[in-house]
Amino acid sequence: MIIMNSEATKEEIANVVREIKKFGLKADISQGAYRTVIGLVGDESKIPFSHFAVLPGVKEARPVETPYKLISREYARMAEGETGNRIIKVGDVEIGGDEPVFIAGPCAIESKEQLFKTAEGVKKAGAHILRGGIFKPRTSVHSFQGLGGNGSEGASEALSWLREAGNRFELPVVTEIRGESQVDLVAEHVDIIQIGARNMYDQDLITKVARKGKPILYKRHFGAGIEEFLSFAEYIVAEENRDIILCERGILPLGKGRSYTRYTLDLSAVPAMRKETYLPVIVDPSHAAGRRDLIFDLSCASIAVGACGLIIETHHNPVEALVDSQQQITPDELKEVISACRQIHKAVQHCQRT
Amino acid sequence: MIIMNSEATKEEIANVVREIKKFGLKADISQGAYRTVIGLVGDESKIPFSHFAVLPGVKEARPVETPYKLISREYARMAEGETGNRIIKVGDVEIGGDEPVFIAGPCAIESKEQLFKTAEGVKKAGAHILRGGIFKPRTSVHSFQGLGGNGSEGASEALSWLREAGNRFELPVVTEIRGESQVDLVAEHVDIIQIGARNMYDQDLITKVARKGKPILYKRHFGAGIEEFLSFAEYIVAEENRDIILCERGILPLGKGRSYTRYTLDLSAVPAMRKETYLPVIVDPSHAAGRRDLIFDLSCASIAVGACGLIIETHHNPVEALVDSQQQITPDELKEVISACRQIHKAVQHCQRT
Amino acid sequence: MIIMNSEATKEEIANVVREIKKFGLKADISQGAYRTVIGLVGDESKIPFSHFAVLPGVKEARPVETPYKLISREYARMAEGETGNRIIKVGDVEIGGDEPVFIAGPCAIESKEQLFKTAEGVKKAGAHILRGGIFKPRTSVHSFQGLGGNGSEGASEALSWLREAGNRFELPVVTEIRGESQVDLVAEHVDIIQIGARNMYDQDLITKVARKGKPILYKRHFGAGIEEFLSFAEYIVAEENRDIILCERGILPLGKGRSYTRYTLDLSAVPAMRKETYLPVIVDPSHAAGRRDLIFDLSCASIAVGACGLIIETHHNPVEALVDSQQQITPDELKEVISACRQIHKAVQHCQRT
Amino acid sequence: MIIMNSEATKEEIANVVREIKKFGLKADISQGAYRTVIGLVGDESKIPFSHFAVLPGVKEARPVETPYKLISREYARMAEGETGNRIIKVGDVEIGGDEPVFIAGPCAIESKEQLFKTAEGVKKAGAHILRGGIFKPRTSVHSFQGLGGNGSEGASEALSWLREAGNRFELPVVTEIRGESQVDLVAEHVDIIQIGARNMYDQDLITKVARKGKPILYKRHFGAGIEEFLSFAEYIVAEENRDIILCERGILPLGKGRSYTRYTLDLSAVPAMRKETYLPVIVDPSHAAGRRDLIFDLSCASIAVGACGLIIETHHNPVEALVDSQQQITPDELKEVISACRQIHKAVQHCQRT
Repeated sequence: MIIMNSEATKEEIANVVREIKKFGLKADISQGAYRTVIGLVGDESKIPFSHFAVLPGVKEARPVETPYKLISREYARMAEGETGNRIIKVGDVEIGGDEPVFIAGPCAIESKEQLFKTAEGVKKAGAHILRGGIFKPRTSVHSFQGLGGNGSEGASEALSWLREAGNRFELPVVTEIRGESQVDLVAEHVDIIQIGARNMYDQDLITKVARKGKPILYKRHFGAGIEEFLSFAEYIVAEENRDIILCERGILPLGKGRSYTRYTLDLSAVPAMRKETYLPVIVDPSHAAGRRDLIFDLSCASIAVGACGLIIETHHNPVEALVDSQQQITPDELKEVISACRQIHKAVQHCQRT
Repeated sequence: MIIMNSEATKEEIANVVREIKKFGLKADISQGAYRTVIGLVGDESKIPFSHFAVLPGVKEARPVETPYKLISREYARMAEGETGNRIIKVGDVEIGGDEPVFIAGPCAIESKEQLFKTAEGVKKAGAHILRGGIFKPRTSVHSFQGLGGNGSEGASEALSWLREAGNRFELPVVTEIRGESQVDLVAEHVDIIQIGARNMYDQDLITKVARKGKPILYKRHFGAGIEEFLSFAEYIVAEENRDIILCERGILPLGKGRSYTRYTLDLSAVPAMRKETYLPVIVDPSHAAGRRDLIFDLSCASIAVGACGLIIETHHNPVEALVDSQQQITPDELKEVISACRQIHKAVQHCQRT
Repeated sequence: MIIMNSEATKEEIANVVREIKKFGLKADISQGAYRTVIGLVGDESKIPFSHFAVLPGVKEARPVETPYKLISREYARMAEGETGNRIIKVGDVEIGGDEPVFIAGPCAIESKEQLFKTAEGVKKAGAHILRGGIFKPRTSVHSFQGLGGNGSEGASEALSWLREAGNRFELPVVTEIRGESQVDLVAEHVDIIQIGARNMYDQDLITKVARKGKPILYKRHFGAGIEEFLSFAEYIVAEENRDIILCERGILPLGKGRSYTRYTLDLSAVPAMRKETYLPVIVDPSHAAGRRDLIFDLSCASIAVGACGLIIETHHNPVEALVDSQQQITPDELKEVISACRQIHKAVQHCQRT
Repeated sequence: MIIMNSEATKEEIANVVREIKKFGLKADISQGAYRTVIGLVGDESKIPFSHFAVLPGVKEARPVETPYKLISREYARMAEGETGNRIIKVGDVEIGGDEPVFIAGPCAIESKEQLFKTAEGVKKAGAHILRGGIFKPRTSVHSFQGLGGNGSEGASEALSWLREAGNRFELPVVTEIRGESQVDLVAEHVDIIQIGARNMYDQDLITKVARKGKPILYKRHFGAGIEEFLSFAEYIVAEENRDIILCERGILPLGKGRSYTRYTLDLSAVPAMRKETYLPVIVDPSHAAGRRDLIFDLSCASIAVGACGLIIETHHNPVEALVDSQQQITPDELKEVISACRQIHKAVQHCQRT
């Protein structure tokens, strides 16, 4: 859509129309009393709007379609005949299906014993997928970076533990990847590859991971608008990988005084995104809250708002955790969360209109 | 707490201690290898911390207690022997009690007929309290300001309609106040006085309303931190009025690209505030979302996260509404919301730990 | 502008056109391959866009003009023949004229002696206008509220001191108003009435102040977008008072970790607003920074970016200030600021293109 | 610093002290009337605070030192005897020295001709360093990704043009790197490697680039707090590379209504960071504003606030630019900017206190 200045001349309008035609599109001119608006008829992606914005007489030039096309509900319907939501199958688990899915496990894998104890606990609590961090993104270079951090050889060992724990307790496994050099190794060992919030914008990493063809747990950056998040998810689909689990994990809190949660969990984003895309959306209450006493409440709210599942940091003994000990819960607490969420899901499902 | 610079001299420390004593407090000195920290023993409110912050040798000076004392759980317990939550009774309705409370009605009262039709509808749908806007805060001076807007005489008439509708359908009534000149008139007619988000910081108005002794529905400003919101609520308690219903209605969204909701509903704030204060907290999903198709989901999430109730804009015919027609729902839709919320409340209550 | 859904039917389009005509406007239909856009020809302010947004087939309905009309450059040019910037004269001082204007004085008036000492200092330093707070907006009800705070009789006395100091040192005076009950009293004593950031949204107060016909120093709220700020300024012009000095004083900082300034000074807003409106724009670096060691740098930047002046909290002895002692500077420091700003103004003026 | 609950028992306090000793630090106990605060004496980096935060009786546990040590002014002074600012030499250019440095060139290199024309222009305008984008980070996978984008072979050719242009016009050159696979190739060709805002958090990429030993132009992410930005810069110093040019390029704008600039340029961050670290800080007004008509004003303000230089997108013919054409300026406009900035720098330098 090209919006002309109120004083735009006929010549300027004609010039814009000529430019549009150069790009193989058709122009529709709407001449009002105050100004002329020129609509673009055709595939807008061929139009460099910034080019038009600086043409003489132009007030504003912008696309009217969403920047994400391949992951949009509209596209799925119009271009491909798909209608429903995408259901991602990982082993026997269905993400985006009828039941909410629970992913749990320690923030960081610290030892084989710690991982196995926690894995056993989350399995008993009813979780479906096991998480465990090996390459930890950290704000400070002085902090523990995970067993795979700093390029040490601990990575392979930790990954094999994760695989073994998954097999033992019949839980598909997921771990986060932080850099391109880890992609091949991680893809060999896990069922789902996580791209964390801090790497959300890393299009080279995203592309490389997408090509592995495995399901991707893709987290929204805390500074990313919904439109931006969905646009970057499009980089994955562009590699013909549609097994994307979107994850809301909190956005920047208001910068005023003392903060009561580490981030602001943007629960409105869950139904808002579900209306835009056919991909499943889950929620991570642990990183959003940064405090364990809110996990139960936020988990309930996430399921009530329509999330397809949750990823919750769980540790068999949070007090001893090397990372994020303030926000991890125990397997027993996880059990309560899962139980409440299931009841809420039933209550909502019963009523919810599409 | 006064934190000294690492190079602070003995003389500078002694000076700080002397200053503290002048204010009738006791100082506790903690001398570490790098620096000295001086704790304040006594009533910190007597200390102008900014005064201390500029004394020689001082790195930082700040209170360790929350700025809200009279509304805090801690204070309620320590100072007054209260233990539980405050329950506010308005007629037969209990806000903050065992059951969630639903406040509904039109954004703006447009006519007697519109108000009564909607009031009848929300009563049938199961709402407990009737809302109706008479003095509308508007961004543009060119917009409709409500029947009481611009100081017209419409205010009295609209208020009497609201009172009459409340009586007819046995619903306590609430309306928003926007300026000091409206306080007396409004207090005569309604059961609860609303101070809207835009007036949250207006301490003169707050004080004047508080003195009326009526329950106050007090909304968080979209740019206010939780600490700031609770601190301003303290202005009401300072007038010996503890019938305060706190309301979360959305905070500033991330400033990136297209917005999918008008504000970001900060649901984490609900349990976070409940842990800080004994006052009931409700949620307004209508203004947060700015779109009706998310009201159901956000209402469910609000109850699931622990809100004591909801305030939802409802209109017997939203398409014709003069204000906020995009976010108002019908009484029939309200009924579905209330039904789902009740089921969720039951599910959560069953599980919820304190 | 009414943007139809891609599947909108002819009947739906015709219906929208009918609705537009009802409001006395003309419709211009632009039928593209994907969708139809309907332009509004005429005075858009008559159109309740939210009404149109919910009509069948409508995707989006929104005005294309800015919401502020009377303060816009476009309006000034088109509707009134004005061309240049508005220059506000207060005594011999011109705000918005060729030279930057400096407003200085204590955050809060604490005593006659303190005020006179500081007034003398700022006069010598080269300031043009004297500020002094009497009604202080405070986050905590437990804090010092200014000599006029809490409705005490100190207000009249403090106002008379301010007037006297202004006369003695030949400085026009400005003070902040916080509630409607203070308007008459304050208007009697001062040359400029300040509406502070926290009252920016208080349209009843704004209107009441505007009617006094005195120049208004109007501060942007820390959570207000530029469009919102300018829209609310329109409430003043609607009362036929165009003597408005807009003031940028910092917006919400990013909510991450430790804050290095109390607010984020939005200096881009200065030239951005100057392009939208003919009103003068000044900057308050004191409240933005919240720390005195940045006042010099931010003042220089403000003048360099095109501000018409500065308002700087100055105290003859900041260490003893009852409020904001961390951010007030001394008259000597003010002198350095003014000297640097004048040189920068000269440097910029020499180069600056309109 | 470990802050105990007011009801903490002697046993709980003793337990915390025992834990602190386990980590090789000394504890200093400050027992007040309300609570006990335990200071940490020794190297705090050995203390996992989250571990302490969950011990019985503990209210809060946090470090008192900044998370960045190696880049801090304090560290430079205390640990290394350095006193002044770091000056980074690239060829004959000194960044962080007495004169402001100007980096200019096209957003994206589009052709050899375009690059050389622009390079010639910026050289004549007085720029010191040539920039040119080859790997463009883009929100949409459907947009032009730069000549090196999508892994095409265009990268080598474009890099050799950049090198050649630098040699021809005697300008050191800088380009942005987006992924790990580009590091070796880019390091071979350029004098300074840029890590863009979107990769700010990418610690694996940062580390890999740092090891090349070349100066790094490191941009702050639009959602990153200052503390966070400086902490991540520490990853570079940890690889023994201290040639870091910090760059402020705008943070998230307020999410309200229409935006007048793409980002909010956080100019307060410039002096705030300069007080924390010895590294030079420059400003990128182009990406912050997103509109060319503010570049002049923001450049002047940047220099006035104390920036060591500017990076400005310049194109010999912005109207034809494939990327960011709305914000690029011409070499002639750049010349005006540089001239004004030099005068401002002189004016400020004359006055500025350290």
